[in-house]
Amino acid sequence: MNDTPSDTTPNTPSEMTPDPAATSGPTPAFILVRPQMGENIGGAARAMWNFGLDRMRVVAPRDGWPNENAVAMASGAGRLLDEAAHFDRVQDAIGDCDYVFATTARMRDITKPVMSPERAMEHARAIIAQGGKVGVMFGPERAGLENDDVIQANALISIPVNPEFPSLNLAQAVLLTAYEWQRQTTQVIPEVVMMANTDWAGLVEVQKLADHYEETLDTAGLFYPQDKAASMKAVLRNMWSRMPLTRADVQVFHGMIRQMKRWKERG
Amino acid sequence: MNDTPSDTTPNTPSEMTPDPAATSGPTPAFILVRPQMGENIGGAARAMWNFGLDRMRVVAPRDGWPNENAVAMASGAGRLLDEAAHFDRVQDAIGDCDYVFATTARMRDITKPVMSPERAMEHARAIIAQGGKVGVMFGPERAGLENDDVIQANALISIPVNPEFPSLNLAQAVLLTAYEWQRQTTQVIPEVVMMANTDWAGLVEVQKLADHYEETLDTAGLFYPQDKAASMKAVLRNMWSRMPLTRADVQVFHGMIRQMKRWKERG
Repeated sequence: MNDTPSDTTPNTPSEMTPDPAATSGPTPAFILVRPQMGENIGGAARAMWNFGLDRMRVVAPRDGWPNENAVAMASGAGRLLDEAAHFDRVQDAIGDCDYVFATTARMRDITKPVMSPERAMEHARAIIAQGGKVGVMFGPERAGLENDDVIQANALISIPVNPEFPSLNLAQAVLLTAYEWQRQTTQVIPEVVMMANTDWAGLVEVQKLADHYEETLDTAGLFYPQDKAASMKAVLRNMWSRMPLTRADVQVFHGMIRQMKRWKERG
Repeated sequence: MNDTPSDTTPNTPSEMTPDPAATSGPTPAFILVRPQMGENIGGAARAMWNFGLDRMRVVAPRDGWPNENAVAMASGAGRLLDEAAHFDRVQDAIGDCDYVFATTARMRDITKPVMSPERAMEHARAIIAQGGKVGVMFGPERAGLENDDVIQANALISIPVNPEFPSLNLAQAVLLTAYEWQRQTTQVIPEVVMMANTDWAGLVEVQKLADHYEETLDTAGLFYPQDKAASMKAVLRNMWSRMPLTRADVQVFHGMIRQMKRWKERG
């Protein structure tokens, strides 16, 4: 498949830019255990770097190290491969970690905590905040991690996919885990995001707009019959005050009714 | 890249299996607007079905419809393509929706709420819980959605990626959005009280209101000079789609402009 990156979606509105202090601090190491296809290693690097993670470790990649296909695929995230630490054995790759997660494709006869990516990355943050080092292991494409790998981990990560269709590839599993890490640094307060950089109309401006409409529509004969006029006006006032109007919106609404008046006056 | 699915990661431990009732209920429609590569359409189908979403719509795919490459790539999620609704125009694809999101690659000169995927899918759940229909638009691989598409949406979704490396492909954007939908099946939906018992206007009603104003104001001579008419109309359309209009509000707005016309006609 042509998996060339394409800017289909995101880009970061300035108000949602992750806090640099949050992303530049210590982050988990993502450890690819016996990865097979170089393309998948490159795809994993891209997925990590999309969410500000840059500490990759590679254990016994099938096709040796460095890997040309990985480099070709990683494009803008190539630095992660250049800087990736290369190990022969899992126990060496995780040797300096204080806590290690294993992403796992199937349940096993191993008693371990099982966490969602969300819960796992919360836990990772707590450990890192206290000066600890965290690793997350991802298994080879076909078979997943072996029991010998898994038993070295402190906890398992399981992504709650559709049980009828539980197929994620390596880069996708890395992407979702990295996303969960990032999601918790951004801590966007949604309503604030919506409000940012928006020049909302003040109360007085909205009142003046409501006045303008009420007067004009009164002249035009909208508030009829007389005994319903007050309640009709109240409905209108309430509607204006309920709308999230920007200054520009207010001008547009003024402009519309003004134009209708001019049209009338032209006869 | 060899993007063959590989069971690297998940599988669902029984204690994390999504609640079937939650996933079998109504879900958002994911709308691929002018997608280019069939492989990416297939990849998007897989990403959707990984998280239990199966309502795909396709608008004006570059290589026609059905698409063999999409089918080949979708493998286990091929049903989504068989059942996908195919449209020529965005407005038809979203016509039955009550609320539409646009995923967007860059910020624009359009005033719309911008939400994280998390917040957006929370909002989608709230609307769907009350019987509403939700659509999420994804743009073509290279260029993303056009402004004409975006102004028809009620809100934008922006994924908080690394500003130094904001590259996600179509299937990845779909994957993260679908993941956020699924993630919340096990969560309590917060602060949605404001939505309760409100009879929101559907998209078609808002479109008709926008049409009514545009036609009337055109006759009244608002869209002048000629070379600015299109952008003035776009501003108006965007404003209408951004307002949280109830059915009653829509009637009030119709009533106001209708009254101004009558006033004019009375001379």
